[in-house]
Amino acid sequence: MSLDPSRLAPMANAIRALSMDAVQAANSGHPGMPMGMADVAAVLWSKYLKFDPAAPHWPDRDRFVLSAGHGSMLIYSLLHLSGYAAPTMDNIRNFRQLGSPCAGHPENFLLDGVECTTGPLGQGVAMAVGMAIAERHLNAHFGDGLVDHRTWTVAGDGCLMEGINHEAIGIAGHLKLGHLNVLWDSNAITIDGGTDLSTCEDIPARYRATGWHVTECDGHDFADIDRALAEAYAETSRPTLVVCKTVIGKGAPNKQGTSATHGAPLGAEEIAAARAELGWDSPPFEVPEPILADWRSTGEAGAASHAQWQKRCDASPHKAEFLRRMAGDLPAGDEAAKAFAEWLGKSQNIASRKASELALEVLTPLLPEMIGGSADLTGSNNTKTKATGPLTAADYGGRYLYYGIREFGMAAAMNGMVLHGGVIPYGGTFLIFSDYCRNAVRLSALQQVRAIYVFTHDSIGLGEDGPTHQPVEQLMSLRLIPNLNVFRPCDVIETAECWNLALQHRDTPSVLALSRQNLPQLRNDGDMLSAKGAYRLRGASAARKVVLVATGSEVALAAEVADCLEAEGIGADVVSMPCAELFELQDQSYRADIFPADVLKVSIEAGSTLGWERYTGHDGINIGLNRFGASAPAEELFAKFGFTADAIVPKILNKINY
Amino acid sequence: MSLDPSRLAPMANAIRALSMDAVQAANSGHPGMPMGMADVAAVLWSKYLKFDPAAPHWPDRDRFVLSAGHGSMLIYSLLHLSGYAAPTMDNIRNFRQLGSPCAGHPENFLLDGVECTTGPLGQGVAMAVGMAIAERHLNAHFGDGLVDHRTWTVAGDGCLMEGINHEAIGIAGHLKLGHLNVLWDSNAITIDGGTDLSTCEDIPARYRATGWHVTECDGHDFADIDRALAEAYAETSRPTLVVCKTVIGKGAPNKQGTSATHGAPLGAEEIAAARAELGWDSPPFEVPEPILADWRSTGEAGAASHAQWQKRCDASPHKAEFLRRMAGDLPAGDEAAKAFAEWLGKSQNIASRKASELALEVLTPLLPEMIGGSADLTGSNNTKTKATGPLTAADYGGRYLYYGIREFGMAAAMNGMVLHGGVIPYGGTFLIFSDYCRNAVRLSALQQVRAIYVFTHDSIGLGEDGPTHQPVEQLMSLRLIPNLNVFRPCDVIETAECWNLALQHRDTPSVLALSRQNLPQLRNDGDMLSAKGAYRLRGASAARKVVLVATGSEVALAAEVADCLEAEGIGADVVSMPCAELFELQDQSYRADIFPADVLKVSIEAGSTLGWERYTGHDGINIGLNRFGASAPAEELFAKFGFTADAIVPKILNKINY
Repeated sequence: MSLDPSRLAPMANAIRALSMDAVQAANSGHPGMPMGMADVAAVLWSKYLKFDPAAPHWPDRDRFVLSAGHGSMLIYSLLHLSGYAAPTMDNIRNFRQLGSPCAGHPENFLLDGVECTTGPLGQGVAMAVGMAIAERHLNAHFGDGLVDHRTWTVAGDGCLMEGINHEAIGIAGHLKLGHLNVLWDSNAITIDGGTDLSTCEDIPARYRATGWHVTECDGHDFADIDRALAEAYAETSRPTLVVCKTVIGKGAPNKQGTSATHGAPLGAEEIAAARAELGWDSPPFEVPEPILADWRSTGEAGAASHAQWQKRCDASPHKAEFLRRMAGDLPAGDEAAKAFAEWLGKSQNIASRKASELALEVLTPLLPEMIGGSADLTGSNNTKTKATGPLTAADYGGRYLYYGIREFGMAAAMNGMVLHGGVIPYGGTFLIFSDYCRNAVRLSALQQVRAIYVFTHDSIGLGEDGPTHQPVEQLMSLRLIPNLNVFRPCDVIETAECWNLALQHRDTPSVLALSRQNLPQLRNDGDMLSAKGAYRLRGASAARKVVLVATGSEVALAAEVADCLEAEGIGADVVSMPCAELFELQDQSYRADIFPADVLKVSIEAGSTLGWERYTGHDGINIGLNRFGASAPAEELFAKFGFTADAIVPKILNKINY
Repeated sequence: MSLDPSRLAPMANAIRALSMDAVQAANSGHPGMPMGMADVAAVLWSKYLKFDPAAPHWPDRDRFVLSAGHGSMLIYSLLHLSGYAAPTMDNIRNFRQLGSPCAGHPENFLLDGVECTTGPLGQGVAMAVGMAIAERHLNAHFGDGLVDHRTWTVAGDGCLMEGINHEAIGIAGHLKLGHLNVLWDSNAITIDGGTDLSTCEDIPARYRATGWHVTECDGHDFADIDRALAEAYAETSRPTLVVCKTVIGKGAPNKQGTSATHGAPLGAEEIAAARAELGWDSPPFEVPEPILADWRSTGEAGAASHAQWQKRCDASPHKAEFLRRMAGDLPAGDEAAKAFAEWLGKSQNIASRKASELALEVLTPLLPEMIGGSADLTGSNNTKTKATGPLTAADYGGRYLYYGIREFGMAAAMNGMVLHGGVIPYGGTFLIFSDYCRNAVRLSALQQVRAIYVFTHDSIGLGEDGPTHQPVEQLMSLRLIPNLNVFRPCDVIETAECWNLALQHRDTPSVLALSRQNLPQLRNDGDMLSAKGAYRLRGASAARKVVLVATGSEVALAAEVADCLEAEGIGADVVSMPCAELFELQDQSYRADIFPADVLKVSIEAGSTLGWERYTGHDGINIGLNRFGASAPAEELFAKFGFTADAIVPKILNKINY
């Protein structure tokens, strides 16, 4: 459609009316942002955004990311008005109520058209960077005919203050992601008051310093918005920041421009005043037919574009492979299994990070959708393989990202890549620095995306770097995140199994916690025992009195302890538990068989013991580390902190003789 | 001393020699950074840094922060050479060995002169910002005579890529912290290779955009370094970034300028070549007497300055109060206890965040050292009190910081403030966003500082904002961090007790997890029961069959469940556990009395259940939430997820009738 201000204004006001009415009905929510950005959104959706409401999963659609997720009524309004099947007007009436897909913040798993879950500030921008990387990468492999779209992001002052936005724009600027545009809702208001309470930053200058193109517009002047978006659209050699100068809560005559409109209902009186100000005389949750018709027409160009794309796709020799990747299906065949089977006859005494590298050397040539990377610890995380050349501004077809020292930005970008589709990202840092990206790992889990975190140096076994670098509480802490599989393999065989499992879980992200130090090979079967989460690695020889359960580097120690006990005539099972979450999914009889009621249970893990009582009970023994580590060679630390058979065996003997 | 290059060069080479020899002896460590920054450090310590090796705790010393903590041999060399009592040369010989204070990364609790623990990148810069805030704040209250010093920070490329550095410089620029200087070791090398692998940012432009003064020098030209540091010293209206162009590993002729010098020993051959290159013919761990004498003289000016300061201090009418604050002693008197005692007769049904505000209204006038703040959630965190006016560039004497949307920057700044001394910071955000600042909370614990985190909206009780904003795993996850007290008070009385306890624990940071929703007052005694961590709030009336343990908002629910059980003739204790960590410190008989062996134990907490088995055993019941929440009004969510007596009582009856 043409950009006729006399038609755009009522369209924008429809967003304003729905937003203020829905927040009022819910008696909670954020009207200020959708009202402030309504004009910009109307122009974007009318002329620039490529979308087809009838086909929300169309691979070549533009991605629209509402990084300022609290303004969720903006996207709910847009999806409804432009003709998506959902949300319905009833859904919007039930904004923020149990069962409505119109949640307080937009959730990707509730509504098509919500490309990612936002609300934790700054992460939408960072996920958009990931989407834009995936787009350029797939474009490099499949060409303009199949992949040629934009990522548009709406971000607020809060998003742009969070540290993660700095990491994200650093990646985007370096990679010259010209198909990425951030529309900054610059209203100079935060919750506490004016932005001048806490910042005096020249944000455009900062973005320019990081390789971005910057333009600015009056966010309430349709022609000026159109000019700025056209400029952003035309600039394809750099990402663009569009500074949209807006008035928060625009249209609410007495409250606009103040933080009072940010996170609370306007109130009946102010809403009435806004209706008068905007000339909007429809009742709540009603949009006049001509305005709705204008909105419905915004998807027409996208539908036509989609039809043309479909023809190109049908004619493409790459159609099947492209659609396979976008669907997230793994390639057929068992080449990986064959390769891993060759390891069974060996006896490899290697670090699990090295085992992970060996597994990746097998997997990455077979799965072209895998994109690796590291937050500047490539050689330590062992994440780089021969098949994965650098992904750079000069070669988007590469498959390895040098994320820089940006753990949070990396993790969020990985989420964006998965959400875009067509790629499976894995990325590395030290396990301790999972703390830096923890909320993005949580968003992987909440968004149900297959992001794979390679977290190496997973205990005091990293040695001399000392307590700042030694994870203690991180393993158990990650296990607490719902819908996250935390794998801690004990040897080269389990590492291969865990990689397979991570790839097979399409809707669950994975952490691979890997050792710096060498671990002996303990398995010589190809039975994929890790799939059960925990299993009996060795059964007791003598009459069973003890079950030892351990993970990762402590499994070999558990076996050593078992040897000592058996030498005393005390039967001891050794249970390896590479993934507690998968074990919890097993049936009661399996779990009871692994942890029988009538024996002493002993957990051994070089980290927090809190949580291990689930398996050992009150009366078990928990060998672990409930303090910070220290700086020394690894073997000395294991001895100091009691991770030796000499230290553990007497504790067990003492307990069972009691 | 005067800046004579012919004397500075050997001084710098002493750092280089010690660094490469210590790393070689340890067979691990980071020689590149200390060798690259040796020249800058020699100038800084010789002419600009105000310090007295004989009095490392002298309040008016300059603070030196090695944000690039991996270069720890730089600070160990500097402390040893300039005459601090430790580290000794033997300590340095034992770099990175068990028991040496020369740990892999510098630890504030091991060595005087190490102002903060660094290694997790970017946080040193952010802590330096906190130190600089504390300095200006105390200056405003006590004047130039007692407080007038600088904070000097050495940061690497990694520090400046991390998102937290962006948050930190935003705070510093806004507050115009002219006594803060960051010396950027700009060597263009990261672990993965050249910085051009991952960034093309114009860092000086970014700092300028954030309100900083920027100057640059050749980091190997003493005169140029001197000029740049003089410029930084003279600029007191803005913080200064000094770009020090350096060569990593400077002096190692074959490896300098490459990432090979970053994190590994140079090797015997390259060390021999470096000795030749530097003209350094002393054996390892020996420094020629004239060079050592020059180094020892660097502290002379500081010692004189210290003596003058001591005279001013002795003459000051504020001496006692200043020294009290710097020592971290709380004021004498029990005014707070009296004020809290007035609450006992009431029956206040208020949110614990509101109770926290009431407590702060009592405490902040009595403790002038308390500095509040929030990451842009002041009204929600209830952190602002009448006594705490804004701390701004125009009024450093204020006591409330608008940190902006910068949770990580806030937490790290709080650490820096405590480490500086003289203030007790508390800062607020939503509990969910503890994820954003988690590693800084960990560093509070590791560094043993009294930072107090006010984390509100502590469960699904926050309601409509939905799963991105609802903490589930955060409570238990924070409990996993060693040396951190996680308080979750159940009512207004416990909230006051927990605030008292948080203030009393000088070497342990605290989290106060507080509700959004109202909670009934359950206590009317002034017995400080929270000090035991957990206690019997109500004993069973009928014969005891059940112990219900709960925290925070679920304690009232536990009491309701107990009422239902008692109505059935089943005796049930109600245990409130406001702080699991303090409970763990009680003796065995107390703990066994609270959780007796022969009854059913039931935990109720609106968060992860993993970990509660420690108290309930295998055969207890854990009422909790092991999935993400949802968007709806709070009461509906509690019902949906089973947090009602109607849902819980049948589970208990079923279990005990079994």
